[in-house]
Amino acid sequence: MRTAVLVEPTEFELEDRSRPSPGPDDVLVAVHDVGICGSDVHYYEHGRIGDYVVEEPLVLGHESAGEVVETGENVTGLDVGDRVALEPGVPCRRCPHCKRGEYHLCEDVTFMATPPHDGAFTEYVAWPADFAYKLPDSVSTAEGALCEPLSVGIHACRRGNVGTGDTVLVTGAGPIGLMVMEAARAAGATDIVVTDVVAEKLAVAEQRGADLTIDVTETDVETAVDEYTDGVGADVVVEASGADSSIQSTVDTVRRGGTVVLVGLADEATVPLDVLALIDNEIDVHGSFRYKNTYDAAVELLADGVVDVEGIIDFETSLEAIDDAFHRAMEPTVLKGMISVDS
Amino acid sequence: MRTAVLVEPTEFELEDRSRPSPGPDDVLVAVHDVGICGSDVHYYEHGRIGDYVVEEPLVLGHESAGEVVETGENVTGLDVGDRVALEPGVPCRRCPHCKRGEYHLCEDVTFMATPPHDGAFTEYVAWPADFAYKLPDSVSTAEGALCEPLSVGIHACRRGNVGTGDTVLVTGAGPIGLMVMEAARAAGATDIVVTDVVAEKLAVAEQRGADLTIDVTETDVETAVDEYTDGVGADVVVEASGADSSIQSTVDTVRRGGTVVLVGLADEATVPLDVLALIDNEIDVHGSFRYKNTYDAAVELLADGVVDVEGIIDFETSLEAIDDAFHRAMEPTVLKGMISVDS
Amino acid sequence: MRTAVLVEPTEFELEDRSRPSPGPDDVLVAVHDVGICGSDVHYYEHGRIGDYVVEEPLVLGHESAGEVVETGENVTGLDVGDRVALEPGVPCRRCPHCKRGEYHLCEDVTFMATPPHDGAFTEYVAWPADFAYKLPDSVSTAEGALCEPLSVGIHACRRGNVGTGDTVLVTGAGPIGLMVMEAARAAGATDIVVTDVVAEKLAVAEQRGADLTIDVTETDVETAVDEYTDGVGADVVVEASGADSSIQSTVDTVRRGGTVVLVGLADEATVPLDVLALIDNEIDVHGSFRYKNTYDAAVELLADGVVDVEGIIDFETSLEAIDDAFHRAMEPTVLKGMISVDS
Amino acid sequence: MRTAVLVEPTEFELEDRSRPSPGPDDVLVAVHDVGICGSDVHYYEHGRIGDYVVEEPLVLGHESAGEVVETGENVTGLDVGDRVALEPGVPCRRCPHCKRGEYHLCEDVTFMATPPHDGAFTEYVAWPADFAYKLPDSVSTAEGALCEPLSVGIHACRRGNVGTGDTVLVTGAGPIGLMVMEAARAAGATDIVVTDVVAEKLAVAEQRGADLTIDVTETDVETAVDEYTDGVGADVVVEASGADSSIQSTVDTVRRGGTVVLVGLADEATVPLDVLALIDNEIDVHGSFRYKNTYDAAVELLADGVVDVEGIIDFETSLEAIDDAFHRAMEPTVLKGMISVDS
Repeated sequence: MRTAVLVEPTEFELEDRSRPSPGPDDVLVAVHDVGICGSDVHYYEHGRIGDYVVEEPLVLGHESAGEVVETGENVTGLDVGDRVALEPGVPCRRCPHCKRGEYHLCEDVTFMATPPHDGAFTEYVAWPADFAYKLPDSVSTAEGALCEPLSVGIHACRRGNVGTGDTVLVTGAGPIGLMVMEAARAAGATDIVVTDVVAEKLAVAEQRGADLTIDVTETDVETAVDEYTDGVGADVVVEASGADSSIQSTVDTVRRGGTVVLVGLADEATVPLDVLALIDNEIDVHGSFRYKNTYDAAVELLADGVVDVEGIIDFETSLEAIDDAFHRAMEPTVLKGMISVDS
Repeated sequence: MRTAVLVEPTEFELEDRSRPSPGPDDVLVAVHDVGICGSDVHYYEHGRIGDYVVEEPLVLGHESAGEVVETGENVTGLDVGDRVALEPGVPCRRCPHCKRGEYHLCEDVTFMATPPHDGAFTEYVAWPADFAYKLPDSVSTAEGALCEPLSVGIHACRRGNVGTGDTVLVTGAGPIGLMVMEAARAAGATDIVVTDVVAEKLAVAEQRGADLTIDVTETDVETAVDEYTDGVGADVVVEASGADSSIQSTVDTVRRGGTVVLVGLADEATVPLDVLALIDNEIDVHGSFRYKNTYDAAVELLADGVVDVEGIIDFETSLEAIDDAFHRAMEPTVLKGMISVDS
Repeated sequence: MRTAVLVEPTEFELEDRSRPSPGPDDVLVAVHDVGICGSDVHYYEHGRIGDYVVEEPLVLGHESAGEVVETGENVTGLDVGDRVALEPGVPCRRCPHCKRGEYHLCEDVTFMATPPHDGAFTEYVAWPADFAYKLPDSVSTAEGALCEPLSVGIHACRRGNVGTGDTVLVTGAGPIGLMVMEAARAAGATDIVVTDVVAEKLAVAEQRGADLTIDVTETDVETAVDEYTDGVGADVVVEASGADSSIQSTVDTVRRGGTVVLVGLADEATVPLDVLALIDNEIDVHGSFRYKNTYDAAVELLADGVVDVEGIIDFETSLEAIDDAFHRAMEPTVLKGMISVDS
Repeated sequence: MRTAVLVEPTEFELEDRSRPSPGPDDVLVAVHDVGICGSDVHYYEHGRIGDYVVEEPLVLGHESAGEVVETGENVTGLDVGDRVALEPGVPCRRCPHCKRGEYHLCEDVTFMATPPHDGAFTEYVAWPADFAYKLPDSVSTAEGALCEPLSVGIHACRRGNVGTGDTVLVTGAGPIGLMVMEAARAAGATDIVVTDVVAEKLAVAEQRGADLTIDVTETDVETAVDEYTDGVGADVVVEASGADSSIQSTVDTVRRGGTVVLVGLADEATVPLDVLALIDNEIDVHGSFRYKNTYDAAVELLADGVVDVEGIIDFETSLEAIDDAFHRAMEPTVLKGMISVDS
């Protein structure tokens, strides 16, 4: 099977690998669509993300969907021909985290495209059936692949306890920020404010229904939020940019007693935070890591047409064109590139 | 000021009363619209609801909105000319319930149209400013009045912890069931199943977007829900009919580990429940009483056009025609009658 | 290995079975102590509990602890010689319940001594290492075995959200009621009221620190709780008797806005409940089924000496004397019999 | 009545003021005992705490208890002669915070000894009856006064959701750290680790039952906690020192998925925090501000003898000796000085 392998930074090789065999609890999936995530691009450019270093050739891609072509002997509920989205992280199922239902925090997780585990830029993947989610006819495999970033948004909103009538500030209008917007609206948020430093991205946020957009290069975010909320502040702030200044500002824009969710990965690990304000205003700051128990909800939201993920796809190309695709994905205004493996 | 007074069961008198003076923390509101609730009709017909007995002439009506015409000296945030929805229950502000934020459980609440407290079928009401919620231009006073039943729906969904991707079964397609539907959809429910015994009501539920409607006179609800959910059951069941058989069935239609919310008032206090199933499937059964902290969210949802309350209004008439209005409100297929006090 | 097998109701046979081999993730445990639970006695007497019917010879016993004598190849964290308590229910690890951390609701659980799964009245059990909890030196294997009923108490208190300063009413002073008492005290409850119909059991509850005991054959529980709580009611009521009258009374003894936890299995599935009171007082009724994620806490509490489980042991005898032990366990004032397998 | 007034930094004057009259909802309390808090000392030394500046003469003291000598006409539940603890912050009762039950976040709170509101170093205080908590005979007024710092501990533990079996790290062994310890133990924590830089304080923590104490001038806290918890980390870390280094270390000592509670006020508002670790380990950081709905629980815990507050009192002296008392309170090893107003 054709497989795009990152052999060293900025260099893919298209190899012919042997098709994997599904274990008794697995399905074998013919991959159709795989999104290019910022982390894929980061591995491509730098060969590492923090402590995760690409030391052996690695297959990237963890936003994927395809069609079941074979099922293990124990598998029920999925049949050959079913189209499925693949949740890319499979935990150990045995540690305290797994037992508490916070399986995304399992230390022994097998996560696609994170060294040393291969990802989905290939023709076939064998994967545990319980991490493959059947797509209804109304949901395309491209949408199915984007259950992954949508899951990041759903999880962040759950971590912020976003509910009916809430005002939510989303800092950063990249793919994650936009998915947070979608999830927040679905969860009942009635006012969504979005910040960014790129006018084109804010325009997209506005087209997608942001109630207010703020270009933080021109406008002071605290003043703007204060005005928009009559001095109260946002019920929930979801930080999706990773910018230090944005992370710092969350404490000033959230309401007293409100919640800040941190999703965007900072360049620098350490950011100065106003802890006196955290205490005096009794703010909750919640880190949000990947997701858990979100795929069923993501598929339901897509089936209902409540959220829009296809609108962030800028281009779709073949596995053979992966090099070119990664270069386009690096352009600042590109939101999402897709690889159509079966094209 | 003209005031419709229930002097004895089934008999209104239109009196001329003196306009109240607002206290220092109150606003005086010229009432525009008042909805007729099932409880109003019940007092009208029977002169009592359970232990609440109409012993003195009583002004009914607790779903109201109007315009501020005077403000007390301490009032900030509201001005003459503002249109407002009135939350009808004002608590003592001092008991443990109030301090815990469950002010709707305050034993010393002043609740409109509940003996001995007068309601809103009158021209002017003086009311604490913090229980008067400003309506934006896009929300009519008729909609404002219906923040009350919408609040019942919002609160029930909060009590059920309805969230993104949930399947919600609503038993009963009367005004409360329909408001629960609206609130559940707003909170992220992606599958809403509605039951009733009246075909016309189910037709309305279907028009308003129910994913499945079940006429329980023809179809076994447990079988139908089982089939719809692949044997899993509903994540949340909101009982809004008050029918004994419906209350009993909640335990059979909710999923293992799911939540039942009881809103509809049963005719008989005591209903046999399958407690072994409650334990074996670890079900939560949550009573839901009125609402708390819902009006802001209700107004926001209306301003956004996310929920539809006007669609349940069958007719609107004048205060002078209140007798006729109550007779029409008693017809089984009428969802909501409104009194337009200022017409 | 010697194994006590229930071959038909009221008849044990002591068989010699072959010692099981641990799988790669299992430990082999030499069983030391096994408690006799009410469910064991029920199977012994009636050959069934509800839908669970003993159709094949069955080994009873699910409250067990012993010593690790062999470890599977993947096992880390446990070594030969470690003394462990065994959590008797092992879930599928793959279903939505398992992934949500509510693994005790898994439909494919393997639960000791529940047909068709054998229990622990035997010399050796092979069991997944992650459901074997290491006991510190200060905790005996008899105490380790009683982590099981203690877990029922801990889980019930979690289901009731028992916290610092709470008044908790426990209806039923059998082993489960007493374990609920221990767990409630450990969780911060400052007032614990216990009811029963047997004076001897109430005396035990009083010796173990109940602030008030009520003999419901003599005293009206609602009146007594009302008086004790100045008319407020209990913050949490944990029903641990299974008696219909007791289940019904929970709604009258809990405070407005409080929580009822149902643990005791009723004789009749269906019990009439005052649903109007449930709604009017916005009560939460939570079924409580077995436990999840409790064993670590149970062991910690035992190690600290915060809870007392040994005090409920009435007698300890050998596997050979199991028939006699079951007869003694049926006496109404016996709280807990233990089988010492290695004696 | 004799009243100690801070007329300018480091200068008290003993004035004779007129006794206040209780309003209709108030009680007049003859003050017996008032604790000296670190914030009192800070106002005494510096005349300000952050934005709160002493511009007019101010009466300090907010940890107080005494005896009811007069009751307003609306007061029920309290009588002349009752001994009461006074909760020092009375909110507006009308804002969204108050209605949500987070009254401690009310912006219009009247808080004793916070400019411009006078405190309790005086003979009589008129105070809303619902913020006066009756003490049972077994609780002294000195203990009643210390319901205040105990409340800080209870609230911090609630903010951290401390529960049965938890391992809690408390950084800082001053009065607040010790009260957190008491509250954590009462809430079910089975392992409590305490850090400080003063050996004497750690010795006190150890005497009061800390399972491990760490002198952070000698031992690396992350290493020590790692070792104590087998590499897992603490379930909850409560930061009660205000030291920058300690605040920073919380992220390294809490377990994956655990909670950090910030209580100790930092000298510098801004502290660098490892936000990547916050995200990667999905940590919750919760500011904890004062307390709400804690006094009833505090009194119950004291009545039960579950917590020890008297043990932290180093000395008790008269109102006349307040200058000397404040000097002693500034000594680093003094935990708590008390003024006995009625002595």
